[in-house]
Formats: sequence, structure tokens, C-alpha cells
Amino acid sequence: MRYFGADYNPEQWPEAVWAQDVALMRAARVNLVSVGVFAWSRLEPAEGEYRFDWLDRVLDRLHAAGIGVALATPTASPPPWFTAAHPDGLAVTDQGVALTHGSRDSYCISAPAYRRASERIAAALGERYAEHPALVLWHIHNEYGTGCFCEHAATAFRAWLARRYGTLEALNEAWTGSFWSQEYHDWAHVRPPRATQYLPNPTQALDWRRFLSDELRAHYVAQRDVLRRYAPTIPATTNFAFGAWVPVNGWQWAGEVDLIAIDCYPDAPGRRGAEQVAFAADLARSLAAAGSTGKPRPWLLMEQAANVVYTPGRMLARAPGELARHTLSHIARGSIGAMHFQWRAAPGGAELWHAAMLPAAGPDCRAFRETVDTGTLVARLSELDGPVSAPVAIVWDPEAWWAMRAPGLPSSDVDYHDEVSRVHAALYRAGITADFARPGADLSGYPLVVVPALYLLAEAGAAALTAYVHRGGTLVVGYFSALVDRDLRRPPDRLCGLDDLLGLRIEEFRPMPPGETAGLSDGSTVSVWRETVHLAGAVAEVTYTDDGGPAVTRNGRAWYLSGRLDPVALQRLLTRIAAGTGIVATAPDGVELIERGDWLVAINHSDRPAGVPASGVDRLTGDTATGTVALAPGGYAVIRRTRPG
Amino acid sequence: MRYFGADYNPEQWPEAVWAQDVALMRAARVNLVSVGVFAWSRLEPAEGEYRFDWLDRVLDRLHAAGIGVALATPTASPPPWFTAAHPDGLAVTDQGVALTHGSRDSYCISAPAYRRASERIAAALGERYAEHPALVLWHIHNEYGTGCFCEHAATAFRAWLARRYGTLEALNEAWTGSFWSQEYHDWAHVRPPRATQYLPNPTQALDWRRFLSDELRAHYVAQRDVLRRYAPTIPATTNFAFGAWVPVNGWQWAGEVDLIAIDCYPDAPGRRGAEQVAFAADLARSLAAAGSTGKPRPWLLMEQAANVVYTPGRMLARAPGELARHTLSHIARGSIGAMHFQWRAAPGGAELWHAAMLPAAGPDCRAFRETVDTGTLVARLSELDGPVSAPVAIVWDPEAWWAMRAPGLPSSDVDYHDEVSRVHAALYRAGITADFARPGADLSGYPLVVVPALYLLAEAGAAALTAYVHRGGTLVVGYFSALVDRDLRRPPDRLCGLDDLLGLRIEEFRPMPPGETAGLSDGSTVSVWRETVHLAGAVAEVTYTDDGGPAVTRNGRAWYLSGRLDPVALQRLLTRIAAGTGIVATAPDGVELIERGDWLVAINHSDRPAGVPASGVDRLTGDTATGTVALAPGGYAVIRRTRPG
Amino acid sequence: MRYFGADYNPEQWPEAVWAQDVALMRAARVNLVSVGVFAWSRLEPAEGEYRFDWLDRVLDRLHAAGIGVALATPTASPPPWFTAAHPDGLAVTDQGVALTHGSRDSYCISAPAYRRASERIAAALGERYAEHPALVLWHIHNEYGTGCFCEHAATAFRAWLARRYGTLEALNEAWTGSFWSQEYHDWAHVRPPRATQYLPNPTQALDWRRFLSDELRAHYVAQRDVLRRYAPTIPATTNFAFGAWVPVNGWQWAGEVDLIAIDCYPDAPGRRGAEQVAFAADLARSLAAAGSTGKPRPWLLMEQAANVVYTPGRMLARAPGELARHTLSHIARGSIGAMHFQWRAAPGGAELWHAAMLPAAGPDCRAFRETVDTGTLVARLSELDGPVSAPVAIVWDPEAWWAMRAPGLPSSDVDYHDEVSRVHAALYRAGITADFARPGADLSGYPLVVVPALYLLAEAGAAALTAYVHRGGTLVVGYFSALVDRDLRRPPDRLCGLDDLLGLRIEEFRPMPPGETAGLSDGSTVSVWRETVHLAGAVAEVTYTDDGGPAVTRNGRAWYLSGRLDPVALQRLLTRIAAGTGIVATAPDGVELIERGDWLVAINHSDRPAGVPASGVDRLTGDTATGTVALAPGGYAVIRRTRPG
Repeated sequence: MRYFGADYNPEQWPEAVWAQDVALMRAARVNLVSVGVFAWSRLEPAEGEYRFDWLDRVLDRLHAAGIGVALATPTASPPPWFTAAHPDGLAVTDQGVALTHGSRDSYCISAPAYRRASERIAAALGERYAEHPALVLWHIHNEYGTGCFCEHAATAFRAWLARRYGTLEALNEAWTGSFWSQEYHDWAHVRPPRATQYLPNPTQALDWRRFLSDELRAHYVAQRDVLRRYAPTIPATTNFAFGAWVPVNGWQWAGEVDLIAIDCYPDAPGRRGAEQVAFAADLARSLAAAGSTGKPRPWLLMEQAANVVYTPGRMLARAPGELARHTLSHIARGSIGAMHFQWRAAPGGAELWHAAMLPAAGPDCRAFRETVDTGTLVARLSELDGPVSAPVAIVWDPEAWWAMRAPGLPSSDVDYHDEVSRVHAALYRAGITADFARPGADLSGYPLVVVPALYLLAEAGAAALTAYVHRGGTLVVGYFSALVDRDLRRPPDRLCGLDDLLGLRIEEFRPMPPGETAGLSDGSTVSVWRETVHLAGAVAEVTYTDDGGPAVTRNGRAWYLSGRLDPVALQRLLTRIAAGTGIVATAPDGVELIERGDWLVAINHSDRPAGVPASGVDRLTGDTATGTVALAPGGYAVIRRTRPG
Repeated sequence: MRYFGADYNPEQWPEAVWAQDVALMRAARVNLVSVGVFAWSRLEPAEGEYRFDWLDRVLDRLHAAGIGVALATPTASPPPWFTAAHPDGLAVTDQGVALTHGSRDSYCISAPAYRRASERIAAALGERYAEHPALVLWHIHNEYGTGCFCEHAATAFRAWLARRYGTLEALNEAWTGSFWSQEYHDWAHVRPPRATQYLPNPTQALDWRRFLSDELRAHYVAQRDVLRRYAPTIPATTNFAFGAWVPVNGWQWAGEVDLIAIDCYPDAPGRRGAEQVAFAADLARSLAAAGSTGKPRPWLLMEQAANVVYTPGRMLARAPGELARHTLSHIARGSIGAMHFQWRAAPGGAELWHAAMLPAAGPDCRAFRETVDTGTLVARLSELDGPVSAPVAIVWDPEAWWAMRAPGLPSSDVDYHDEVSRVHAALYRAGITADFARPGADLSGYPLVVVPALYLLAEAGAAALTAYVHRGGTLVVGYFSALVDRDLRRPPDRLCGLDDLLGLRIEEFRPMPPGETAGLSDGSTVSVWRETVHLAGAVAEVTYTDDGGPAVTRNGRAWYLSGRLDPVALQRLLTRIAAGTGIVATAPDGVELIERGDWLVAINHSDRPAGVPASGVDRLTGDTATGTVALAPGGYAVIRRTRPG
Repeated sequence: MRYFGADYNPEQWPEAVWAQDVALMRAARVNLVSVGVFAWSRLEPAEGEYRFDWLDRVLDRLHAAGIGVALATPTASPPPWFTAAHPDGLAVTDQGVALTHGSRDSYCISAPAYRRASERIAAALGERYAEHPALVLWHIHNEYGTGCFCEHAATAFRAWLARRYGTLEALNEAWTGSFWSQEYHDWAHVRPPRATQYLPNPTQALDWRRFLSDELRAHYVAQRDVLRRYAPTIPATTNFAFGAWVPVNGWQWAGEVDLIAIDCYPDAPGRRGAEQVAFAADLARSLAAAGSTGKPRPWLLMEQAANVVYTPGRMLARAPGELARHTLSHIARGSIGAMHFQWRAAPGGAELWHAAMLPAAGPDCRAFRETVDTGTLVARLSELDGPVSAPVAIVWDPEAWWAMRAPGLPSSDVDYHDEVSRVHAALYRAGITADFARPGADLSGYPLVVVPALYLLAEAGAAALTAYVHRGGTLVVGYFSALVDRDLRRPPDRLCGLDDLLGLRIEEFRPMPPGETAGLSDGSTVSVWRETVHLAGAVAEVTYTDDGGPAVTRNGRAWYLSGRLDPVALQRLLTRIAAGTGIVATAPDGVELIERGDWLVAINHSDRPAGVPASGVDRLTGDTATGTVALAPGGYAVIRRTRPG
């Protein structure tokens, strides 16, 4: 069974509308809805005073219609009475501004009053609904990511640091307190990274992110444990948001959720949007695997936008068929379904114009018809199963991301997410599916591992890469990798901590001004970043035409890219290196390919017909393909292969 | 009689300069000056201690020279002693920053101490000067628009909300409190829209603007009533500033002022500047009419810049003759005069380089000579009279403007003021003068009504449009209209609240990325915004060439524009529709035309000679025109027509 | 002897590294290091508890290696314990945000606790190290420039104002308190320019900068006097930073330091970077002269970046040879050495990637080899001596700079530093070395004086320029000069306070929009700014082609430039005017020339060979040149001339 559905917020509408909701859900084959995500002020209108009758009716009605419920704890938006009663439960910014309610996420994650109120409402929901037959999943909170700089947070931060470092000597060493006279001799003097005079301490800022990830996780775990007491067999999850501002380390959270769930909002139309979908899905799959002690776990796309693409500044209408293509990509890459925010467009409020399965225009419109079509597609994918074939691992680390957002790095043009996305997209366009791997993970199952711009690399991570190569793996390391350790400290007298493995020495970083390019011996170009590299065992595979220096090097099976190749050259190089490990890349231009056990899923994101070499039966059309599967522009096929190609 | 003059701030100069001031004023035919606008610290150097002797001398001197006085209350800038004595009278920002004095407008409009101090200084002025023979007008405060987020404001906001909504249930419904758990169950929990964690509640933000408009108005009314006690026959006004940040709803203020007065600072040179002048003047005339119970009232241009154009980043010198052309445009459109800020350029201070009638260079310069010429022109316009012919009404609503400044709308490219300006400019360029009309107003006098981007449309406003069409009016509605009601709530299952009137259904908004255009069947293009529209009674007058869908539709006399036409196409379309109602558009390129009773005013903003079809006598030159009035580049004519053309 | 060295922060590294440091310093011919600049938390880990043993070892080790020490007071970064114990010692922003520690410069310069702590640590260092044989110089604080808006600062500001103005009447007059009702009648009501509602008072803002300069200087002087008590013969200095945000008036500080020291970080590569170096060096030399009662004093380049150029957004690698060329330029222009920040790249912290003599890559890299080469070059420059020949003075005033950063000026395109740099660069490119002169200084030694954009010009400054011309000097005044007096007040009825001297009247400023240019009669163009000028004694040397008005005028020896000439035209005009005073400009394109007594230094910044007319012996190569000195691309020569050319 595949899930298809949305956040359902019946409290936004008169009860008279609910019957139409359920009827239209059934028309769209909706079988799961998240209920109550932002309903705290309706469920608990005054402290300790609960109103569950309306929710009872909602759940009963859904159950009667055969629709399951992911019941949410509403803690992502405390009601006004909470913050009025507990001013210290409101967040304070790094400037010291005390925020007010009137939006969402107006709380301090470290405030005892907020923690207590969160567990209390979770317990009340657990007690009342643990046995409800509609209950499928607990959906705790929403898009964790909001921090606070108040005194509660400061106290918790100090305790966290004391656990991490044990002594102030260790903290001073890790934070390089000797720089700018920042050595601490009293724990009480340590503070959150509030606004300061000039450049902040980068390790303090990184530890703050690590702390927030743990602090938010503790809030999650507390609710999960409350709910488990009432319903030990109902799985619990929370929906991960993705973004540079989100202080959540998915690798460390993965083991705490019973099901990885993600929100996915591409910010570009067309092929770039499809690349973003694949990136998010591959990351979710990788987190699911990482949180597992045994075989790969499924995951769930908890939110996508049914009818629009949120580009910066404007909400573009989805291209025809795009919702189905994105949904198919997610499911082919391991999602057990496709959920949306939200079911019915809100009648008002801050997200009045947010996308919805049932959009503002009502059911008689293209967008809703495409939603119904997509529901039909999802229902027909129930057979699609088996492990996703991902022969490449990209090492990805939110800590490296956070670390690279510090000011004062050699080039502000090198953005971590951008660098990782470039590598993922190059493989994607070649038809090669990639997993993401946590630094230090066992990589032995992958013929090829790529490490783009992994600025921060701890000792264990470096050791894992070395072991991987020594055991026969092929490794591609990109510039800006292994520059600092987990405390953001440089290795002495060298620029890269992996240089022995790579058989080279980096002599000098050479950031390039905007518009400048350098030619390479293979005819391609480099921009944004280059280096002066000395070979110390490695051979130069590609050189710079101006000074003859190495651009791409190879030391046995360890490759190094010292500059930012143009996208075509990057795809060509990675395809070539992959081919050397036996990975065949056959995707036609614009066609996304995912192999999953006996299955091959092909999605044509281009506006031209395309053919994919495969033989088997298309389970959507029933057609049999021999040798080639033909794809219409924008079309797709789900092939049960007779001869895996 | 026409007024010609400026803010006159003699307190900025030694008394020895005053004689020269008056002599030069007479040379420039100045006959009215606003005195005392920012003189509080001079008039009341310590709390309750007044110094009027200098002001006596100023008024006496002006009166002796035959110059009238608009005597100001100086409340737009409390002196330092006020804010030092009443720290709670200073404004607090939405971030909670307590501002300090040292600029202007440093007060909280809701602070009791500020209210009391304002009424006290108004009373002192009223008592002393009510009988002064120079007194022509009370000029209360200056450019109302400054709000505050402090506790005084919070208390007043809650009281205002209680009056508006009666119950919290009604407030919760209007604010869509069900979204993100924002339902209030205690009035004390409601707050101003201070900084919050994420997107604010848009209806709360809109109500805050409405509240501020009322709060500022109450401050005005209190002073006006004080002054009326002392001088029942002297009219009172305040000068309206215009801008997206100004929380003043002119429609609601119009009835409280005895004379509509506006400030007008175009921010572009050349034709665009002239369009801005016409926009401001037409709006002022419309406010004057709206505040009237009987026939159209005059209005007054209270501030313009005599010698510069304030473009963003630099003050351009006025083009030769431009001051006269702008002044003529204002007066032709109904102003009873032309005033400036300020008479003599300040010797120092924050606006040291602000324009002035007597500029920094002194009287021996082109700018002052043009000012003198303009004074002569104004004096010769005393006969020009009669109602301005404005056959078109543009529905304009500051609440729609405020509502459209919320984040999270479908496209950030659709700016309310920009959309309205595009329509006004298209009519202006065709030589068609437009009034602005308040939503819900009786439109029966207009052959044609245009409604651009009226995002917020309350029930009464929609009903008035429907009634207008049913009674035979021709209506043109633009995209982004009637999307939400007065509480910013959508109608259920439809995108536009006027679709029945328009005979269509909007299926989907299709915001366009920057640089994208779509072709239309009439050869023009659309950018920024388009929609998928289904006809339901209407016919398609213009279609999109790519998908054949309706772009411009007509349902009887109700037209709809589903996309943003290029300016030439918009002018052509509106001219064509206007022609269908009998409105003739005859302006040559670059020539502004205003009809007023028997009069025709023609202003040539181009650098080429032009001819306007008219017969009559030019009251500026005494020349008689038969059939055609010839205009030099930059020239103008004020024709008393023998045969209105 | 020339100094060559860096900030040396051994506390950042384990003691085991120190031996290598000293060995590599000797290899690079380092003979002076600044120690302890940011070592407060190491020197005084708790209030009043000192740890000097490690510093003893550092100084002993350096001394043993023959390396001198500039011993720093570490007050630029108080340790966490200080701010924890004295919360009122932390800075508050103009928004009222109390900053926290965790960076550097986290103090309020006016806080008594901070003043006391600063003097205490200075005394402790003075007491312990006054007699240390390595001690060469006291290096007090670092890059003064950080202000604070707290109540301590407010109190000090009021006292400063009372000293400056004596009476509130004088303050009100200077601040134009009559504008916007800002007259003060109680000293207690005067405040720092904290955030206010609208435009701030520009004179208040300027006085705030003046106050901060004095307040920071008092902090310096207090430490200097403490140190003098212990070591009367050791000179003391502080390193000046340069930037629009730095509230330090070098002219007023120059007399307080025993040696002018500057930091110099060009923000552009190539020729523009070289121009910035020359600008900084010429300014340092001028400050040294200004602070002297007798003959020109030397100065010291205290910080430059050895291996990178800090362009906005990215750190470019230095071009080959550039470090040597910049270093030579500094020393030729009067520096007694070349110091860097810092010796060894930091292992972590906020400036982990900051440049260093011993860069992150370690000693085996191009950057370190160039550092060694530069050390060798510096050692060979010991003979180079004598006064730098600078026949032109550019009047430069930080107060004018600060004043021009106010909002509301006629054009935001006219930036003071940019205007001065344009003039300096035009002379530099012609091979003419310029001094900078304080307004009011005796200019009689200069054949030519240039005054670019000197917005603020006090009476004494104007008098000095008049006297200079009357005594036979040639003066070039640029637009935007003498617009306001020291209180930022305009002269009445005229735009320029120097118009009598210049023989003209400015009728109108005509700021030009971006992209607009105007042609001149000599074939060149003007952009950004032009004026309408009337001759009143002067003659027009160059006119505008569109209206024939004067562009460049001459009134005897007083020239005026009414518009911004393109760079080539500016260089041509200044060269021509200079030639009229006997100044010969002979620099080939891209070659920097400095004459110093018998010496000629020539630096080829171009990538082509060049020849410079000179005869003598190149003291670097020993070659004798007769008539022409040949320079390789990027090469340089230090010629002891036989016939000064």
C-alpha cells in the first residue's frame, strides 16, 4: 500500500464542509491525512482545558471513509494563552529581541514551561486516541528548526558544552580561545552566540547548531516517549525540513524516528526542480538506511506542493504532468507515498495562497484533476518494490554545511549545498542514482564515493575514506574538503587533511573572481575556484592550460578535483570514473532513470520523445517493451524488467 | 484667488533675514505661507512655558505685506524636553527598539502624555492667534503616518478591535485564528504585530494599519476641535503624504478636514514625473469630492519641490519650465494653489539640501527666477474654474494596497500602486482625466469604471460594481481583483469574487518569471501575470497565442483583463473601451489635456511642437486659436473655449 | 635598519612550535614582531591574576634570536571574565542592543571599568617588561575604532559637548536645532545619535564621531602615559585602521603617537591595489609629518597581508612578486619597514583563513618563498633614505568624510574617499607623488594643491587656501567643496564658500543619473556630477558642449572643476596644471615612480617591459644605468642617481 494524502486541517472550515472534504478525498484516492498539526488553540483553548469532541468527529468520519490518520501533536504553534502566561516561553533572537506570538513556532525550545506544555498536550492526545482505529502514525511537531537565544537556552547550552568537553581547557582548545582572547575560565561566562562586535567564533557558532539539533531532538523524543506509553505499536515521526537555516542533523535524528518523513518544496520549475526532488528523495532514503539497524527502511514524503512551484518571489503554476512525475520520482526512490500541505487551501491566514490538493479554485480545475490523476498513479505503484540501486555514495554532512556558513572563508562563492547539488545533479543526469553517506560510515558497498566540498572532516571520517580506498573503492574528492577538523581547526602546515591519500600537496588556494574562467587540457573550463597542486604520488589526468598545473589528479583509485568544472565536464568526468568501476550510465538527455530490484522507472522531463533501453512490461499501460521503452514528452514508464538492463 | 507659497520657517534664520524674505516673497507673488510646522521647541522651550513674541512679529510682518498665514500646530516634532520628561511618549519599533528624539515624529501617537501636550500647544496657539488678521487656515501636524508598537498602542489596539469585532469569536473568524493556532480566548492576549518568528497574520497586520489610521485621525480631530473652539470660521487641514508606508486612509479622513491638502514629490524626471503629478492631483480632487456632502470641493497642493526632483539616490535639477508645467497641472486638476516645502533653504539640519523656493544659491539663479515665473503664472490662473471633466473612475483603496504588501502572495511582482498607476497613466496619455473612487461609492456618473488589482474587495464594494454595470455602466476589471474580502478571506472554491459579473471562472493563476512574455492575438504581449480563464457567459476579445485561452474578455459591459498588457496595448485597449462609451481621447503624444468647464488646459511635456484641436482664447497669451492650439516644446496653453472640443 | 615582521601570537600554538617559528623568522630576515595583541585572557586569566611566565619565555627566545619586540597591550579584546563581571563594560548599539563577548572589541570605550582594566594591564606589562632587552616599541591596543551608545557614552558625550560649545545656545546654533524642533534647553536631554524615527541630525552625528575620536584617543593616551612611567625611552604607537566607519581623526592623533603606524589591506588586485598602497603610504607619511614639530618623521606599515588580497567576497592569491612591489612602495614612500598580520596562520578561530607570513600551507610554498624574498629585499633597502619628493598636496579631512556619509545629500554617487582616491590615483599614474594636508595647514611648500570634494570646510581651512593662492600657489578645487562649515551649515545665498577665491558663482548643482554623460570642449566627458557655473573673474578653460557653460575654470592660479572628469581626462588636466608649476610627470604607463633625495624608486606594475629615464646605480642589482633604467614586467629598481632626473 502506498500513502496518498495531505495535512488535513478541518478546524479551518465550518463543519458543514467536512463531508465534501471526505467525498473529494475519496475521489482522489486519499488514504492518509495528517490531522491537528496546528490545532493547539482549538484543542486546548485555555490551559489544561481540552476540547476533543470535534476531533473525535473528524477521526470517526475519516475512519468511516477508510482514510487513515497521522495524528499530530500541535506543539509547533503554541496558542496565545501559552505565551501570555509564560513570557519566558517565547523566543529571543540573537539581537535580544523578544518575539511575540501571532505566527507559528513562537516558543523557546529550552523553556521548561514549553516542554511541560508540549508533553501535556501529547499525553492528552495519546490518552484519548491511542486506540482509535483510524490512527496510523503519530506526527510529532512540524519542521523542527526554531532556536532561541534566551537565558533558558544559555543554561542548556552550557550544560551541553560541559557534557561535550568535560573541561574548560578542552573547550578553549576546541574553540581556539587563544584567538582574540576568548579563553574561558568559568563556565558561567560561556554564552550563546548572541550579537557581538565583529566576527563571531566559528566553533562556538557550530556548537550552537549542534546543541540546537540535540535540544530539538530531546523535545521530539520526550513527546515520542509519552505517546509510546499510550500506543506502543503506533510508529512516530516528524517531518524534516531542509535548508541551511535548519539546525537539525538528520544523521543523528534518524534512529529516533520510526519512519523518516521529509518535506520537499523545489524552488525551480522544469529539470532543476526534478533534480531537487531526486536530491531530497535520495537523502531521505539515505537517512532511513542510516537510522536502521537492519535492512533499508522506507520513508515518506510528508509534504509537497500539489499545484505550484515556490520560486523566489512568485508561485509558478505546476507544468502539466509535473506533479505526477515528481510523485513518481519520490516513490521510485523509496517513498511509501506522497503527502501534501495541505488538503484544502486555507480560507485565510498567513498561508492563504499556499498550494493545496484541493486548491483555491475548487475541485473543477486542472490542478485538482491532476491531483486525482496522481492519486490513481500512486495506487497503481503498489507493486513497485525492492531496494533502490544506488552504486554511488556522496558523503554529506550537515555539520560541514553549517561550518561553511561562517564568514571569513576564502571564497563566498563556494556554497556547500550548491557544491553537493552539482555532484548529485551530474550523476542524476547521467542516470546514476546516488545515496548520501554520513562521514565515517562504512562505504564498502559502493563502487564509487564522491566527497564534494567537505570542509569539515573529523578524524573518523578521514579514516573511513582511507579505509575505503585501501579496500578497493574508488574515491573522488572535491576541492574545499578536509580543510578543518570537527573543531574547525586546520592541520598544521598543510591545506588538506586528505593529501596523503590523494598523493598530492595543495600549495595555494586560488579563488577566482566572478566572470573569470581557466581552460583545461580536456577542453573544459573551471570557474570560481582553482588551486595550485603539487603531485606527490598522484598523476595529473587533466591540467590547466595556462600554467600546466594539475587540475584533476588520480592516485590509484583516489581522484581529486582542484577546481570547479563546468556542469557538462563534471558529468563527463564522473561518468568516466564511474565507468571505470563498472557503473553504466545510459540515461538519454532529460530522462530520469531509477532501478529498483526488477523494476526500472523512467521519467521523461524533456519536451521531446525519448527511448530507454529496457525490456519488460510497463505496469501502468500493460504494454510490453522489447529492447526499448518509448517515452512521450513528459511521459513515464514503470517497467517490470525481463532482462535488467 | 490662487494660493502660492510655502512652508515658512523663520525660526531657522536670524530675524534680520525676515525683511528680505518678505520682499522676495512679494517678488514671487507669494500670498500664503505655512508657519510654525516644526517650531515647537521655539514656541514652548519648556513644558508650559510659551514664547509667542517672535511669532507675533512674523505674523504681523506677513500680514503687513498682504501675505496670509496657514498657522501650524507643531506636533509633528515634539521638543527634546517632552520625550525626556515622558519616555513613554517615544515610539517603540516592531522589534521593541525604543527610539530617541533627534529627528522628527519621535512620539507615540497613542501615548496620553503626547495627546495632552498636543492639545495644549494647539489650544495655546488657538487662544493667541484665532483673531489674527493674517490667519487663513489651520495647518495641523504634518504628514501623518508614524505609528508605534508600545504598550499604550497595544491597549488602544485592543480597544479598537473590541469595537470593531465585539467578540473574540468574531475576531478569530476574521483573523482566521484557526490557521497556526492563533485563536484568542482573552482580549489581553491580543498584541500589536510585533516581530514574530515567521510569517505574520495578514489580517492582524491590516487591522493594525486600520487602527493606526483611526488613531492618527483621532489625534487630528482632537486638535481641530480645540482650534474650532477658538476660531470657528477658520478652516483646518493637514497635509497628506502618499506612500505605501503611510497608515492613513484618505477616504475616511476626507470628511474631517475642511480642505484636502496633499504633498507631491514625483520621484522621476520628465514624462513619468508629470504622470505622477496628475495621479496625485486626481487623487486629491477625488478625496475632496468624497469628503463633501455637496458639490466638489477644492483642494490644495501643500508641498512640492520648487527646484529639484527627488529621484532615488540623487536630487536632479528640475528641467526648464517643469515647475510651471507641474504647477499648472495641479491647478488645472483642481488645486486652489501651489505651495512648497520650504520657502528658504534651511541653513543646516537633516534637510539642508531640501528643495526650496528660495534655494541655497540665493535669489540670483535660474531656480528662483522660475519660481517667480511660476508665481506669475499662478496669479493669471485665477479665472480658471468649473468642474474638472473626468469621465472615468478608477476604484482605489488604501486597504487593498496595505493588504497587498503582505508576504506570501502569489507574485511579488504585482504591486498595487504600480498597477493602479499603469491604468491611470494609460488614460492620462490618451488625454482622458480620471477620478479615483472609493469602493462602494456610487459610480453612476461615470461612463467607464476601471478596477485594477483590487485584491481586497468587501461585499459592499462588489455590490456597487454589480449595480453599476446593471445600470448601464461599462466596467473594466483587472487581474488580482476581488481575491479576498475585507478580512482577507477567500471565497470558497473560486479565485475571484466578481466572476459572475464578469461571466467567467478563473481556473489558475499563472505568475510569469522575470523576462517571460506571452503573445496575444492582437499582436501585443503580456508579462508578469496571466491566468487560465474559462468563459461562462463572457466572450474572448483577445486570446493568448500559445494556448488560445482568453486574455481579455467581455461580458456585456463588463470587461476583464487576465494579464498585464504592455503599456501601449493597455492604452489602446482602454481608449477603445472608452470610445465605446462615448469618451473621445485626442491627446497628441506627450501632451497633457485637462478640460474644466469651458476651459481646456494643454501642457506639452515633449520636446517637440504639438497642436491640440481647440478653438478659443489663450488667457495666458491673449492669442485666439481657431481649430488648433499650437504648443511649443515644453509649452502650455489655458484656453477659454468658444466651441468645447 | 628596516623592520620586517608580523604580529606574533605564540599563545595560539603549543610551545613546541615556537622553536620552528624563530628559525623560520630568521630565514625570512624577520627582525621585529608584535607580541600579545590579543593575549589578555592568557595574560590575566582572572581579574588581577597575571601569568607572565610564557611571555617571558617568548621574549627571551626572540631576543636570543636577535628579533625585537613591539609589545602590545591587549586591550582590543577583553577576556570573557571582564564582560561577565562588568556588564556595563560591553558595547550597546545604536539600536540599543547590548552586545556580548565572543569576538573582539567587545567593550564600551567610555566605561570606567574598562578604562581601569586597560590601565591596569598596561601597568602590569610596563612594570614587568620595561627593561626587557627585546623591547623596541609599545603597541597599544589595535585598530581603534569601536564606539558604544550606552549611558556611559551618553554621559561622556554630554561632557564633551559642554566643553566644545560652552552653552546650549551655541550647541543649538551649531546643530541647527531650529530645524525640526530640536532645540535643547537642558544638557541632560542631549543624547547619542541612537536610532530615531527619521533622518538624524547630521551635526549631532558628526559631533558623535568627533567625540568618539577623542574618547578613543584618551584611552590610548592613558595607556601611553602608564607605559611611559615605566619605560620613558621606549616609543609607543597604535596601528591606525582606515575606513569610512572608523571614528579616528588621524590629524588629531598624530601628535600623540611616537611613531605613525598603519594597517594596509588593498581590496583589489593589480594596479588598483598598487594605487591603494600608495594612497595609504602617502597618508601615513603625511600624518607623520603632521604630528611632528620638526622634520618629517618616519612611519611604519604595521600590517599588510603577505599572501592574499582581500577582495569583497573572496581572498585572491597575491600575484607573483606583488608582495615585494607593495612592500617596496611602502618603504620608498617612507615606511621604516613592513609588518604583517600575522606571522603564522591561526590554527582556528574567526580569522582561520587570514593571510600570514607563514601561511596555512606551511613553509614549503610559493607564498612563504616570496615572503623570504621580500625580507631579503627589505634588508637591502637600508640605505634608501632622504625626504620623499611630494610636490603636490591633497587636502584631506576625515571630518569631511564623516560629514558626507549623512543621508540626504544631493547625490549618493559622490563618495568622499572615492573622489580623493581619483585625484590621488591620477597623480600617481602620472608619476607625481602627493602628500595629504590637513585643512588649515601651511601649504606654502607645495607648488600645487588639490582639494577634491571637501564638503566641509571650516573658516580656517578656507583662509589657508586663500592665503596659499595669494602667496603664489596653484590651487585646484573640485566640485562638492566648501559647501558647509564645521557645523555643517551652509553659507547664505551661495553654494560654495570658496567662490570668491575661484572667481565664480555656482548657480545650480546638476547631479547626473547613472549612465548619463556630458561632453566637454576638450573631447573628454563628465559623468555623475556637473554644475551650472557663472564666471565672476575666472575664465573657462573647458566648457560643456551642450550648453557652452564652464566646466573647468581658472581664476589666476585658482582652478575649479565643476564636474567629474573621466580618469584619463583628470590625469591629463592635473598633469597640465602641474606642468605649469614646474612639476614634471614622466612615469610610463603602469610604472610607479618615487623620488627620495638622491634616490629614485621605480616599480613596474605592468606586464610589459618599461624604461624610466634616469642615470645611476641600481642598489639591488649593482647595475649602472645611463639615461634609462630598464624594468622587466613586474620588476623594480632602486637607483642612487648620479643626475637626479
